[in-house]
Amino acid sequence: MSVPILVITNSFIPEYLFTELKKRGSLKLKRDLSPEEFEKAKQEAEIIIASGGSKFKKEDYDSCPNLKLITDFGVGYDGIDINEANLHQVLVSHTPNVLNDDVADLALAHTLNITRNLVNSHNYAKAGIWEQEGAFPLATNCHHQKVGLVGLGRIGLEIAHRAEAFKMKVSYYARHPKDVPYCYYDNLEEMAKNVEILILAIPASKETFHLIDKKILKALGPQGFLINIARGSIVNTEDLIYALEHKEIKGAALDVFEHEPHIEEALRKLDNVILSPHIGSATESTRLAMANLVLANVDAYLKGESLVTQVKENKF
Amino acid sequence: MSVPILVITNSFIPEYLFTELKKRGSLKLKRDLSPEEFEKAKQEAEIIIASGGSKFKKEDYDSCPNLKLITDFGVGYDGIDINEANLHQVLVSHTPNVLNDDVADLALAHTLNITRNLVNSHNYAKAGIWEQEGAFPLATNCHHQKVGLVGLGRIGLEIAHRAEAFKMKVSYYARHPKDVPYCYYDNLEEMAKNVEILILAIPASKETFHLIDKKILKALGPQGFLINIARGSIVNTEDLIYALEHKEIKGAALDVFEHEPHIEEALRKLDNVILSPHIGSATESTRLAMANLVLANVDAYLKGESLVTQVKENKF
Repeated sequence: MSVPILVITNSFIPEYLFTELKKRGSLKLKRDLSPEEFEKAKQEAEIIIASGGSKFKKEDYDSCPNLKLITDFGVGYDGIDINEANLHQVLVSHTPNVLNDDVADLALAHTLNITRNLVNSHNYAKAGIWEQEGAFPLATNCHHQKVGLVGLGRIGLEIAHRAEAFKMKVSYYARHPKDVPYCYYDNLEEMAKNVEILILAIPASKETFHLIDKKILKALGPQGFLINIARGSIVNTEDLIYALEHKEIKGAALDVFEHEPHIEEALRKLDNVILSPHIGSATESTRLAMANLVLANVDAYLKGESLVTQVKENKF
Repeated sequence: MSVPILVITNSFIPEYLFTELKKRGSLKLKRDLSPEEFEKAKQEAEIIIASGGSKFKKEDYDSCPNLKLITDFGVGYDGIDINEANLHQVLVSHTPNVLNDDVADLALAHTLNITRNLVNSHNYAKAGIWEQEGAFPLATNCHHQKVGLVGLGRIGLEIAHRAEAFKMKVSYYARHPKDVPYCYYDNLEEMAKNVEILILAIPASKETFHLIDKKILKALGPQGFLINIARGSIVNTEDLIYALEHKEIKGAALDVFEHEPHIEEALRKLDNVILSPHIGSATESTRLAMANLVLANVDAYLKGESLVTQVKENKF
């Protein structure tokens, strides 16, 4: 009998992955199903394909009695309740590492864009007003700035490596110091006071929910920039909007949002903000590598082998 | 008697420099003068302050009989005829090195922005259509790409250093190979065929005029990107517009333009182009450093000492 595979996300995943999954089981996609058909497909599903934004909670496990494997097409799995997976003896994999370079590239791009005011300068040049209006206002240099990384995991290390090439002084905030040549802080507010650029590179969790609030933004100060390529929930959006509107910080560059794909209108109206629609890993080559890593996990499961990239809290 | 100093450029230069120059001589600014007053000021001027875009040709030297020093507020001095300066025994200085980091930062920003399609993704997020329209199209990764530097001077080396942190394979085209760990080409077309990203970092001169033409763009090819942070005259604008419109190359990111501050409308209409209004060195800290270097050259001249950063072809 063909293994029932259900894709519960409507976006992100390349067609290539669907083509490959069809060779391995009977594939159903949420986007093709009515709500009733989707509920029935959950009843049958043995393998579920989720993406970074997918939510999978207790009631979802309860409605999937045949579920054995969730593969998350993404590195963050904060939407998937791993405790429940353990209770229901469901394996969970994700796609770490293959996207580190793309996400770190974006972090540096956003850092350069917001310090150098590049989107506004593009709009100025594109509008054809340079001839009449004269030189564009001066911006802030990016090189030699003090940058503070919130989290120094695999992606954080890639960001730090790039930041060094821009001669930035790298600090990091983490639970424990690591064997790296960067300045360690065990107090986030203290670090925010001492850097000009704060880059978030920490997973979403109960502990990191609204970690960046008015206190931290105030510490970052009126010359400071916030970069978020991690997860929207790490930032208190209301506090950030207030800080940007009142110039309590100089600017923010955001790839992720608390209520994405919704972005608060107040954020979209500001001109000291650079936005992108969660494209950290959105390149052809990385999405292909992520698809292949999902397939490797599906294949390992089908062969009864250990998953290639099992989520670390997933144990039963 | 107070030394007559004349500023012949209307843009770029910070007020700080004017304040300091007033302590050293009788300062006149082109922007404050009628055409007749400007001609009279040229007759008197002993020191002229120019900027990167300034033109100073034989007839200008002829109309400045008392001229002894031109200080260029910028690194490029292609607008200033150095042969004529030598014939007229005029000293010429510029402001190298202090802007290398800013220009290299911009080169990387533009490389990231055009490969990752970041300006369009910003506009997509800002327009609030992500919720309705779904995921933004995939882009090209920047890391691990093959990058070809046209010119490997001080700025080129800074760009190469940063590109290495993005795990790019660096090649360069120059007159002679240098003692660097990068792949040397003595043939530009050959290099363009073998890289995905071509970054111009070479001075403008008769030799480099329209160096980038349809032949080179064709060699770069439909997956290729052109980045220009050097000088507009190095690129045949007509050929570039044709190549972009016909997808003969994938995109271009340009800080400099052949007829700047005018930018061709055809360029401004394209969506596979990122533009900026010649802001390579346009940060507060770098413009201050450039101003101080102009002052150091003025002071050296006034004391009868060697210039700090004399233009290398300036000998008499």
